Amino acid sequence: MAFSGEHHPGVAPTPEETQGFRLNHTMLRIKDPERALAFYSQVFGMQVMRRLDFEEMQFSLYFLANLEDGDTVPEDVSARTAWTFSQKGLLELTHNWGTEDQPDFAYHDGNAEPQGFGHICFCVPNLEAAQAWFDEHDVTFVKRADQGKMQDVIFVKDADGYWIEVIQADRMANKGD
Amino acid sequence: MAFSGEHHPGVAPTPEETQGFRLNHTMLRIKDPERALAFYSQVFGMQVMRRLDFEEMQFSLYFLANLEDGDTVPEDVSARTAWTFSQKGLLELTHNWGTEDQPDFAYHDGNAEPQGFGHICFCVPNLEAAQAWFDEHDVTFVKRADQGKMQDVIFVKDADGYWIEVIQADRMANKGD
Repeated sequence: MAFSGEHHPGVAPTPEETQGFRLNHTMLRIKDPERALAFYSQVFGMQVMRRLDFEEMQFSLYFLANLEDGDTVPEDVSARTAWTFSQKGLLELTHNWGTEDQPDFAYHDGNAEPQGFGHICFCVPNLEAAQAWFDEHDVTFVKRADQGKMQDVIFVKDADGYWIEVIQADRMANKGD
Repeated sequence: MAFSGEHHPGVAPTPEETQGFRLNHTMLRIKDPERALAFYSQVFGMQVMRRLDFEEMQFSLYFLANLEDGDTVPEDVSARTAWTFSQKGLLELTHNWGTEDQPDFAYHDGNAEPQGFGHICFCVPNLEAAQAWFDEHDVTFVKRADQGKMQDVIFVKDADGYWIEVIQADRMANKGD
């Protein structure tokens, strides 16, 4: 029997009408696209699948993915756009033009008050190698793998100060109750 | 030749050290798990893969996924946890115990000031069917598919007021420039 989800108060059986629903992306606003793209491409290995510019509304959107062996991304821009919006686990970065030139401009990370959004999380094949890689790139740590109550869990900050959790899947098996 | 990402200022070639990095999940704080789980399971077809309780710190984490044909989720809790943390496009809901009993308690959606996080986005097989489905469940709309400048894009609110974008991949091909 295939596992079909834990039962908890509120949880309903999966309705047929939701078949094919996928969590495609998470959107974060960024101050400076050059800095944010450098961070996510260089440190987290993401690639820009599609950039959309909205001249009238003065903003640009960047859709980033971690490509894997076996991913066949179409070259054709229209086919590639459809591919991009059918994937799971993408990141959308929204740049409102001009914020990069305002010295005091900063976005809210959701962990300071008022709270809401907490973080995005990447799984990686090797936690120690990832931590060394972040050190190599002078990434700001919120906590290292051996700090705090959550052992084997890393938190770093992205170029805008948003928190990124980093985990190794097979070392999460014994967390919590 | 496989497509390997658009070039933009800041974008670096994908380093070998980031191979296997995956955007596993996005974490949002929720006030009432029963309401939030009802919403994400009933309206968006997500299932709880793993709940983790932290008695000492008085919070619980719920990790939700949209399962698809071909997903083979282990029954064994330890194997299932490792499976959960190796996927893409999951949602983590964090419940700090007791908030559900505070009438005026609410989390910040990131779109009101101070801004930061914007939304999560689901792709669906049929946008009109999804819109009718949301109506059937009295979901609160930010905008319907035919409203505003972004045609063919729906925005709804979840049980905590976070924005959820809903799109149909093959109708996104001609967006932006």
